[in-house]
Formats: sequence, C-alpha cells, structure tokens
Amino acid sequence: MPVTCKAAVAFGPNEPLQIRVIEVADPGPKEVMVRLAATGLCHSDLSMMEGKGNVTFPIVFGHEGFGEVVACGEGVTEFEVGDTVIPYLIPDCGECFFCKSGRTNLCVQFGARRQSPWTPFSLDGKPIATFMGLGTFAEITVVKEDMLTKVDSKAPADYACCIGCGVTTGIGAALNTAQVKPGSTVGVFGVGGVGLSVVQGARLAGAGRIIAIDMNPAKEEVARRMGATDFVNAKEVDNLVSHLFQMTGMGLDYAFECVGSPKLMALALEATNPAWGLAVNIGVVEAGKELTTLPNTLVTGRRWTGSLMGGAKRQDVSRYVDMFMRGEIKLDDLVSHRLDLEEINHGFDMMRSGESVRSVIMY
Amino acid sequence: MPVTCKAAVAFGPNEPLQIRVIEVADPGPKEVMVRLAATGLCHSDLSMMEGKGNVTFPIVFGHEGFGEVVACGEGVTEFEVGDTVIPYLIPDCGECFFCKSGRTNLCVQFGARRQSPWTPFSLDGKPIATFMGLGTFAEITVVKEDMLTKVDSKAPADYACCIGCGVTTGIGAALNTAQVKPGSTVGVFGVGGVGLSVVQGARLAGAGRIIAIDMNPAKEEVARRMGATDFVNAKEVDNLVSHLFQMTGMGLDYAFECVGSPKLMALALEATNPAWGLAVNIGVVEAGKELTTLPNTLVTGRRWTGSLMGGAKRQDVSRYVDMFMRGEIKLDDLVSHRLDLEEINHGFDMMRSGESVRSVIMY
Repeated sequence: MPVTCKAAVAFGPNEPLQIRVIEVADPGPKEVMVRLAATGLCHSDLSMMEGKGNVTFPIVFGHEGFGEVVACGEGVTEFEVGDTVIPYLIPDCGECFFCKSGRTNLCVQFGARRQSPWTPFSLDGKPIATFMGLGTFAEITVVKEDMLTKVDSKAPADYACCIGCGVTTGIGAALNTAQVKPGSTVGVFGVGGVGLSVVQGARLAGAGRIIAIDMNPAKEEVARRMGATDFVNAKEVDNLVSHLFQMTGMGLDYAFECVGSPKLMALALEATNPAWGLAVNIGVVEAGKELTTLPNTLVTGRRWTGSLMGGAKRQDVSRYVDMFMRGEIKLDDLVSHRLDLEEINHGFDMMRSGESVRSVIMY
Repeated sequence: MPVTCKAAVAFGPNEPLQIRVIEVADPGPKEVMVRLAATGLCHSDLSMMEGKGNVTFPIVFGHEGFGEVVACGEGVTEFEVGDTVIPYLIPDCGECFFCKSGRTNLCVQFGARRQSPWTPFSLDGKPIATFMGLGTFAEITVVKEDMLTKVDSKAPADYACCIGCGVTTGIGAALNTAQVKPGSTVGVFGVGGVGLSVVQGARLAGAGRIIAIDMNPAKEEVARRMGATDFVNAKEVDNLVSHLFQMTGMGLDYAFECVGSPKLMALALEATNPAWGLAVNIGVVEAGKELTTLPNTLVTGRRWTGSLMGGAKRQDVSRYVDMFMRGEIKLDDLVSHRLDLEEINHGFDMMRSGESVRSVIMY
C-alpha cells in the first residue's frame, strides 16, 4: 500500500491550488521520507504559480519545510527515523568540484537534478512534479539525503520552517555573500521576509547604519524592530539614488535587492559607494528579463553580484536554528499568519496584497 | 614672453591632428610645468578623437607622458626643477573622503576637475583644452602637482611613458582590482597594450593559467612572451564561452575585458566560474552604450566590476617604474613604434589597423 497524504496541487499556471489526496512513493536509495509539521509560503512559490519560471504542471510547490523523518531509503547514513529536519534547496553531494572547493554553496547536482523528472508524488497513477526536489506543500514528502539538515528537535515548527529558505537567504546574503563589515552602511531594498532577514543579518554583522527601503510604510515598524536604523518610503522620494546619497554622503557600502526587479537592482547598484559599493541581487527575476546598467556605474569599482540561498550550505540552516533558539535571531515579527493547508490560496492572496509578512501552513 | 612649443591639436572630431606652435601658460599655484621626453598613443585618445566622449574641441590630447620638471608654481612642495616625472590621470588631493579612506584610487577631484575649463594651452590668444588635465601631445605641458609622480631618472623615456596609463591600468587591474590569487585561471579578452599588461600582472600575481583571447593571431607570440600560457583566436571558435569552459572545466577565476565592447564584457562575465568568477571591465565603452546580462549570470555568485586605471594611485606608477628597472616588468614587446610628433596621425592609423602594439612619440 503506498503512503497517501493531502497536498496542495497546482494544475496549471495562475490556477488556484487544489487540495488533493496524493500518493507518495517509498524513499529510494539515499532518499528520506519526511512528515512535515509546517511549511512557509515563499514569494518564489508564487512566481512559479504565476508561470514565471520553468516548471512542469501538475506540481506540488513548497520548499520551506520543517518536519520529522518517517522512513529512510537504502544507504541513508546521516538520518534516522525520528530526526527533526529541514529540507534545503541546494544539494550537497560532497563530491563535485564546487563542494570540494569549500568556497561556495553551489553543487553540480543543483543544476543536474532540476533537469531530472524525478518525483515521489503521483495522483491516480500519473506523476505530479515536486518543486526543486522538495515539494513541501504535501503533508509527506521524499527528498534526497543531501538536501536535508538535522536541526534542534525543540525548535517551534512555525518559525523554524522559515529558516529553510527566506531567513537563511537573507541572513546568509549579509554574512556569507557580502560579508558585511562592522560599522558599514547597508541599504535593503524591499523588506518582506527575505529583506527583513537581510536587515537582521546586517545587524548580526555589526553594520553601523541599516536603511530599510520599501513602498509600504507599514513595514517601517517591523524593519526597525529587526535592526533597521532608518526607513525610506520609496513612494515619497523623487529620486531614490540621490536621496540615499544625501542620507549617506558617499553612498551605501552594501545594497541588497530583495524584490526581483531588474530596474530596482540597477538603482540599488547606483546607490552604492562608487569606489567599493557591493550590490547583491537576491530577488528572483521573471524569466527573460535582463539586468542593465551603464559601464560607468561599475568602472570606478562598484561590484555587482547575486546571492543564491545566501551563499549558505545546509549546515548553515542548522546553525541559524541554533542562533534562533539562543535568541540571537528574532523571528517573532516574521511569521504573521498561521493557516491550515486548506487556506493556502488565501495565504498567497495575502502575499500578493502585502497584508502578510510570512504565512505558514501548520499541518 | 609666454612659453611656446609644438603640439598636436585636435580641432574637431574625426579630423587629423594638426601640428601647431601653441602658448603654454606659466604654472599657477600648485601647478608644475613639465617638458616631455616621450608620450604614448593610447586607445582612449583615439576614442576621444573619434568623438566618442565628452570633450571640448580644440584640444590637446595625450595622457601617457614622461619628462622633466622645468618650472614649479607657487606652493609646490613635492617637486623641483630637474625632477623626472610621469603625469597621472587621477588626482590625489589627500583630503577627500576617498583619499582618506585608503581603500581606493578615486579622488573627488577626479570628477570635479573634469568639469573645470582650466587649461594652460592657447593658440592666437584663444584657449585650447587639455585632455584630462594632462595634454601630453604638447612638448611642454602644465599639470596639477597631485597628478604627477617622481620616478627613477634613469628610466628610458620610450618605455617609461607607457607606464603612466596602459601598463599601470593592466597590471593594476590584476594586482589591485582583482587581486588575482596564485594558481588561478585568468582570461584576458583583447591583448593590446592594456591586455598585455593584464597578462603581465597575472603572471606577477602567480596565476597558474593565463588565457589570452584576441581576433588577431599575430598577438599570440607577444602574449606568450608576456606570460600567457594559452591563446584563443576568437575568430576561430563558434562559441567563445563554451570554448573557455571546455578549456578550463569550470570557467575562469578572473576575466578582464580590455576592448571596450559591452557584448564582450557580458561574454567575459559568462565565461567565469559561476560560483566565484570575477569579471573586470577595463575597456572604455562608447558613451551611451549599456551593459546587459541575465540575472542568472550573477545569482550563483559571479561578480562584475570595473577598473579605473587599475585601481592604482600615482605612487604605484613610480613603483612599477622601479619594477621595470629591476626587470620584473617587461616592456620590450609593448613599444612597437617610435615616431616624431609630426608622424602622430600615422601612429593612430597603425593603432586602427592593429599594425602597432604601442606607438610612442619621442620629443
């Protein structure tokens, strides 16, 4: 008898998710079955649901999870039934050029597996894809062993699930990708879940000034609680770049774009210090759109880069959970809504309207 | 009686330079008069002569010089008559935010002075502009004190003048901007005077593999003599990025664009290692043209930056002259033609046709 469970299935772009009972295959070699306790709704899920990426429908989205190991496939050595785990988007094969370099969170399996049609899910005998190999909008999922990390079993599911993607991406972008220096000036463009985590990462790094920038004035209070020293309502200034230069004198030492707008990425770059400013693109840009800037923006020494999951490896996720448990990372403000799986479409509606910071599905 | 001398004057874009006798004003406060022994012809001069920049005609171009101090204005403390000097494009005011930071060769005077109409030159009483405050296509010029550096008086004029711009730009891009690590893999896109100096800088930094890329197969021999371990004729490969990935396995650790083509800058970036590749734009791009790439090129960790004069300050020029005198920097292959001032248009013709590596005017 195959395992069955409820899942939110996307049958096509821009269609509401449908709650169905699906089948989940037993874990194969080096695979682990996880019963999820919670999953966060991330903006990348929404972008994919809106058809802005390369995914196959029908599909089970979801990639911010937290749960318990319920079965291990052949050859699994790192986990056993009962372990508390968080799935992670980037594999850690340990054998490729990147993994062996010790200089990056990239793994050749990241690209390779995205092109594989592998999925543990099916409905009426027909396969349903799993998003990025995680598919956490199902009560039960199966993931590759090297895409899981063991975490403190006492961590609360609602907060801890967010660490698997948004929190790690934001904090990692500040600590790993940019390596923000103490006393420096940081601008965060867009303070949703990821942006607030960048604010938090900049605070942990000891930044002297952290400027949160958003078009929603309601974000000011929460951004300040996370560590922002200044807030700019982008709707209220004529020229954002000039405004930031007026505020800072010589521009930002670091700029983080957390929206996914190529135009905002260019502005964030221009708002950095001409000699050594580092602009980090975190937001996921719609497929087909290009980044553009003038050569002179870079020629004086600015650096433009991106951050994939904050440059973090799966072990960083466990570390961030520990930091949360010790009170060093604050997540109270991040999780704004707790929903049943049946309310998932409402959760995405609140994301679209900006009503929520982060909604979490509690299984 | 004002000082007069011969100079190559540009009266308008795309017009041949005309040799005229012009007047040179006495050095004002903090200004130094220099009698030039040699000046190099640089591609930036050509671009400006072709109207691709913001300059006022008539103008005396030229910015790679080497000569002797013949008069000092009021308040000059660093130089005296008889000193051997090289003029340098970037001021070093010592008092601005950038100079005080110790982190960049940028100086606020760099932008400020470019907007000033100051010039020491005139013809029949009408002012003639000086390019970037240097105007070395005149036998005698006047420059600001903080745009000069004292160098070894025994240095040969023909080689040493090239250190003032092209050599410093190339070597500095490798050593200062990119800080090339020993054992790394470097690609140099375009091996003219600057590109060959990047090759040389990469060699000085201990790069393990230095791939010179050019469309002119005649460049292979000189590139190899400067330190290149490989040569790619860009005309002979279908897809330059794929070809470089095949050669290197995981892409270049560092890429340097020395042509000034936004398309080539994008290719150079794509040819770098996805996780940590650093692409440095050195070539001067025609005004109005944009840089474009896909967000995914940066998201995995590549970094895109530029280099202004190799991130070097004027003191680095003196240091590079010393390295040349000790035989650590090789310039034999760089200077291909020595010309009289009257032959300057022929020199630029040879630059256009690719016949010359570097032509030098010997006064």
